[in-house]
Amino acid sequence: MLSKSQIKLITKLKQKKYRLQHGFFVVEGIKTIQELLQSKLTLYTLFTTETFNIDAKDEVLITETELKRISFLTTPNKALAVFKIPKPKPINTTGLILALDAVRDPGNLGTIIRLCDWFGITDLVCSNETVDCFNPKVIQATMGSISRVNINYVDLVDFFNETNLPVFGAFMEGENVYTKQLPKAGVLVMGNEANGISKAIEAVITEKISIPRFGNLQATESLNVATATAILLSEFRRG
Amino acid sequence: MLSKSQIKLITKLKQKKYRLQHGFFVVEGIKTIQELLQSKLTLYTLFTTETFNIDAKDEVLITETELKRISFLTTPNKALAVFKIPKPKPINTTGLILALDAVRDPGNLGTIIRLCDWFGITDLVCSNETVDCFNPKVIQATMGSISRVNINYVDLVDFFNETNLPVFGAFMEGENVYTKQLPKAGVLVMGNEANGISKAIEAVITEKISIPRFGNLQATESLNVATATAILLSEFRRG
Repeated sequence: MLSKSQIKLITKLKQKKYRLQHGFFVVEGIKTIQELLQSKLTLYTLFTTETFNIDAKDEVLITETELKRISFLTTPNKALAVFKIPKPKPINTTGLILALDAVRDPGNLGTIIRLCDWFGITDLVCSNETVDCFNPKVIQATMGSISRVNINYVDLVDFFNETNLPVFGAFMEGENVYTKQLPKAGVLVMGNEANGISKAIEAVITEKISIPRFGNLQATESLNVATATAILLSEFRRG
Repeated sequence: MLSKSQIKLITKLKQKKYRLQHGFFVVEGIKTIQELLQSKLTLYTLFTTETFNIDAKDEVLITETELKRISFLTTPNKALAVFKIPKPKPINTTGLILALDAVRDPGNLGTIIRLCDWFGITDLVCSNETVDCFNPKVIQATMGSISRVNINYVDLVDFFNETNLPVFGAFMEGENVYTKQLPKAGVLVMGNEANGISKAIEAVITEKISIPRFGNLQATESLNVATATAILLSEFRRG
């Protein structure tokens, strides 16, 4: 059974300000929930139409109609879990770090978090203008990777001014990434979907790189930020 | 002014069966429409709130309220164009071809078409189970690339049986793509979001390849199909 206050809390968690206020975020879908239950994240309450056989005090059995009332999805998927937002760890500056300058699309951020997980990027640093990583659409796209990547929201200019790492940024006129020597430790910056890397960040980039285009002159001007990130992380890791 | 029959036609074009029946598809957003007007695609009618200064018989000036009635978007973007669906050209089998085995998500297909355009892949071959490339959400994600990639829907098994090209497929247990010699001509097959490459197609794959994972053992099982396609096309092209 769902209480009114539970419905109210969950509905609020769609919005960033309430996620920050309450310190909770919502996860939907059996597979992702199961994966997160096995992670270091802390469950607050699981609302589900079928028991997960976890501690009874953490689980609330609900009907499909009740799930529809609280779900953020058009087609709810059997369970909805509320987890505690973890406190981010300090940024580990010994390896390759990915930094995002105002990435706005939740699907893109979710895909990028999954890429970090795949390529063993432990630290993702987001500008304060980047979409919140606990946005339900981001969580949906991460497929469970959210628990394995340390994500900090910071003032990127301050962060770059404090680090001695080389800072790589993707630009149309940068050096060919396929022939450039790439280091094991450094920061790769990816920019906003429409505007790319901002002027303020461009000023602190030490190495401009670019993915060569193979199409004809009329070809697309740019790649989607998530696919460009995929190619660049692959280049840094392939050695 | 919009006529009732125009509203009815456009609304129908949301569905694949009516797109096939009428031979038209819908494009929204000024930038993409402008790009497609300069392509080899044929415009049927442009419905717009601001003139594009094209041949008056091709342009219908409408109000924002009228645009809202016909738009497929939550936030309509000044214009909606109806273009003729082009007849695909025969598949060019002299270079690198990308084949999709039941990719279902419109956003993924759109991103993949944009990747083909970037990497100069002239031919995309889709299984009949793959989402229709003239689906409005696909068009939205292609950012204009739809006019520059030749897309055929075929029975993939028949197509592979008729070709002498090496057929590469992405599998978890495939050969490391970073160290494998990749040819200039061949087919790369990408599978369905949830199930990967189907058994029937697996049987005709001549080379299994894989993108190495760098995360720890608990890391994500797989990459999103669009990001995996980005990395593999980049590997084929980088030489």
